[in-house]
Amino acid sequence: MLLQHARRARRLVIIGFGPVASRLIDELLPAVRDHRLQLLVIGAESQPAYNRIMIGELALGSIDQELMIMSDLQELEADGVRFRLGVPVTEIDRDRRFVTLADGDQYAYDELIFATGAAARVPRLAGLPECPPGQDPMLPAGVTVLRDLGDAERLATMSQRGRELVVLGGGVLGMELALTAAEAGAVVTLVHAGRVPMERNLDPTAAAIVARHLRRRRIRIVADARAAAVRLHEGRFAGLGLADGSQISGDGLVVCCGAAPRTGLAARSGLLVDVGIVVDHQLRTVDDATISAIGDCAQMRCAEDDCERCVAISAPSGLIGPGFAQAEWLAARLLADRHQRQPVESPAVRSPASGDDAPCDGAPVMILKTPGLSVVSAGSVDLDPLDCLVGEDDRRVAQWSDPELGRYAKMITRGGTLEGLICIGLPRTAAELTLLYERGSELPSDRSSLLRHDGPDHASGTDPLGPDATVCRCNGVSAGAINAAIDDGHRDVTAIGRATRAGTGCGTCKDRICELLRTRTEVVVA
Amino acid sequence: MLLQHARRARRLVIIGFGPVASRLIDELLPAVRDHRLQLLVIGAESQPAYNRIMIGELALGSIDQELMIMSDLQELEADGVRFRLGVPVTEIDRDRRFVTLADGDQYAYDELIFATGAAARVPRLAGLPECPPGQDPMLPAGVTVLRDLGDAERLATMSQRGRELVVLGGGVLGMELALTAAEAGAVVTLVHAGRVPMERNLDPTAAAIVARHLRRRRIRIVADARAAAVRLHEGRFAGLGLADGSQISGDGLVVCCGAAPRTGLAARSGLLVDVGIVVDHQLRTVDDATISAIGDCAQMRCAEDDCERCVAISAPSGLIGPGFAQAEWLAARLLADRHQRQPVESPAVRSPASGDDAPCDGAPVMILKTPGLSVVSAGSVDLDPLDCLVGEDDRRVAQWSDPELGRYAKMITRGGTLEGLICIGLPRTAAELTLLYERGSELPSDRSSLLRHDGPDHASGTDPLGPDATVCRCNGVSAGAINAAIDDGHRDVTAIGRATRAGTGCGTCKDRICELLRTRTEVVVA
Repeated sequence: MLLQHARRARRLVIIGFGPVASRLIDELLPAVRDHRLQLLVIGAESQPAYNRIMIGELALGSIDQELMIMSDLQELEADGVRFRLGVPVTEIDRDRRFVTLADGDQYAYDELIFATGAAARVPRLAGLPECPPGQDPMLPAGVTVLRDLGDAERLATMSQRGRELVVLGGGVLGMELALTAAEAGAVVTLVHAGRVPMERNLDPTAAAIVARHLRRRRIRIVADARAAAVRLHEGRFAGLGLADGSQISGDGLVVCCGAAPRTGLAARSGLLVDVGIVVDHQLRTVDDATISAIGDCAQMRCAEDDCERCVAISAPSGLIGPGFAQAEWLAARLLADRHQRQPVESPAVRSPASGDDAPCDGAPVMILKTPGLSVVSAGSVDLDPLDCLVGEDDRRVAQWSDPELGRYAKMITRGGTLEGLICIGLPRTAAELTLLYERGSELPSDRSSLLRHDGPDHASGTDPLGPDATVCRCNGVSAGAINAAIDDGHRDVTAIGRATRAGTGCGTCKDRICELLRTRTEVVVA
Repeated sequence: MLLQHARRARRLVIIGFGPVASRLIDELLPAVRDHRLQLLVIGAESQPAYNRIMIGELALGSIDQELMIMSDLQELEADGVRFRLGVPVTEIDRDRRFVTLADGDQYAYDELIFATGAAARVPRLAGLPECPPGQDPMLPAGVTVLRDLGDAERLATMSQRGRELVVLGGGVLGMELALTAAEAGAVVTLVHAGRVPMERNLDPTAAAIVARHLRRRRIRIVADARAAAVRLHEGRFAGLGLADGSQISGDGLVVCCGAAPRTGLAARSGLLVDVGIVVDHQLRTVDDATISAIGDCAQMRCAEDDCERCVAISAPSGLIGPGFAQAEWLAARLLADRHQRQPVESPAVRSPASGDDAPCDGAPVMILKTPGLSVVSAGSVDLDPLDCLVGEDDRRVAQWSDPELGRYAKMITRGGTLEGLICIGLPRTAAELTLLYERGSELPSDRSSLLRHDGPDHASGTDPLGPDATVCRCNGVSAGAINAAIDDGHRDVTAIGRATRAGTGCGTCKDRICELLRTRTEVVVA
């Protein structure tokens, strides 16, 4: 008894203060309040955790910065969490277990957690300083990536009405940015390397629907383009040079070429780094059991050569849902190390067979959502109905195509469950298919019945998916939980977000939360 | 007054006694009973009119001959109609207005009507006697076409269980026959000239679905085949030789290469013949105002060079509905010539602008219906959703494709109305689309809602198309009229056919009549 009292609280140090770190802190908070844990959070940025996914919307004025903030610093400090923000860690002494900061301060740890996330990837371009993957780039005026609040400020000036904005990259981020900037009045050119934007996620029909949508919003598309150089004029961006010698002039350039896990510090500390910091199924680095990594900086790859789970994951997905789930799982493990508590897995993530393993990225779902265009894609999407008829493929493809309305759905199944899907312009069908995909549930035999979710007679009414349906996939919040929050008096999306966390991840479920709000309050009033 | 009494009854002679002639007789019957008309019907076959469309089913034992008979000879004779059956007309003296029969008998006429229909078309094949288009072929043992009751008998012997049957021709007739014969146990090879069966009516996906259906029923398909010769052994069919030198052996050959209007007699009589007997918009031959032609032997082509209606019709469609409508229109004209009655057009046929013109073939709809496969196609079907996105086409394409279930629907519209359609495995959707096509009605904006007609929750319930919907297209009978007949106590398809004529044309609507019967009697009982 005396021994237990004498034992000092375990010292946890978290490097990084993004959304995933914020979730981990929330989960550990009870133990911090009880003085069972000493928690120090070190952040390179001086702001508290905010939702990075909304950076583009913030820059283009469609949301307020306050809505993005995910942590209340003062409250956390009052609870006993210590912070060192705006000072990066420069060194880790793994033998003696302490970290050194840029200002020379040193902090000892019992457990160290990397939650450093990812940095925007900037391709090698003449005229730009070289930027190794996983490091934050130094960019000239008029050039930005879309990662932090500083980027948002830069983008805001670059994309004012009438300005010519060049967007490099045809992925989801580039697409969303191009559409939002065009909406805000910028003259946008989208430059990308594929034949069509989002080439890997779309088949030819879907790509053509998306391309037409871009054209109709007067976005100029330069496909099959290999960016080669940034042309500067008096130190400011003036144009993007392509490998074929052509130039695209503009007032600003936004580089949307994906992100790379921030691994520099881990690598310097002698930890194994592949694409990300390599961790096992308990999220521990393979070199050091006292160091863990979660979220975008972590890459699950255990020691076994033929581990099926590890083989299935090539790199972190960059999605926030799996990061949240890992934060929750790790918190449970860290607390269980003391209290033998069983870790609980989040139901939102496709779980592996073993209940003792941390959730991995699962099957990523690509979601693009702008006011005029919603695109969801997952898995392998290339198989066409005709292929199934001609070849010996045991997959089944069902497909609805109505390009005039910008509607398209493709469901590729094996044994009744989805292996791939594309859904454009059918947001409710997309939500249903995403759930069926993530849960590995069997589709109804008449696939066309799924299209009814977006049918005309599906006005308000009850949620077609029932109260158990997950509405917010990032946070695993069900329709029932949201309805309960509405019944408790939370009457707007922000209030529901505070009460349930729904809608505070990638934000794509906000429309459905609004629908539930409308329906539920109508029902309550009636 | 005296003059009118003294006027003798006009003498009408009809050459041909098929379904279209039978309908004309029915319409003229009141005038025959009143002795206002003398009606003589001359038929080359000795049987009364029967429904030719069911010949294949008769041969393969799925229906009874009695069900095919469309006229009650004794009743008609009792009403005053005279018949000369089994004796062809050999000559027409147009100046003196009389016809001469093969047995030398001669009959005078005031009005002469050709309703000689069409003869099966037999391609030039070494080993077969030459058969000019529009004449009935002379075929060796083991070779048949599918046109009359004699053919049905020949086919019955040829297609017994285990026999090897070669079907030449990949159109609707060849397809239906191949499937019915395979069902009956024959070993079937389908030989056709296109890349796929029904090539002109199907796009690649539809064709692949149909081809797979044939393969699964163990029908061997020989595509891109040019039949060159019939090989005989001791005077009987032994094999079909192709232009590439290969041979397809078998116990019997059915030639399903379409039909040609029977025009020999008309041509010999100096009447203008193009594909069919050329008639104007009043169904009168262009050379002789006392001679008319209706149904499959007639081709509408007036004297005007740029008549839009005539340009739209290249040849008779071979469908029974337009023939019925022409019979009704002609009867009205023949009676109106005396009584100034206005001719009435059938609502089932897309009517031209002018109300005084006879109905022409309209836009043909291809309907294939066997127990396991229903295919409907109309208009131009080649446009793909992707084409609309890429090109400047102002048509819209919506498409549902689920080949695993053998389901496919394509709707090609311009300004909201159908210009082309394909529907496979979705019989109710097909019925709805056919109606929308023939009426030129606007489709609902959400095209996918049309698929619900074949959805799971569309069990019984009321007819989705309402009481005004045409169920029997050949005879223009509405759901309401059928329901009225059910309420009058007609409780099976045959009885309803006698009461309303519904289901006595091409027969493809019988399923829907059964459904109405089931629903209506349930409703009545409840």
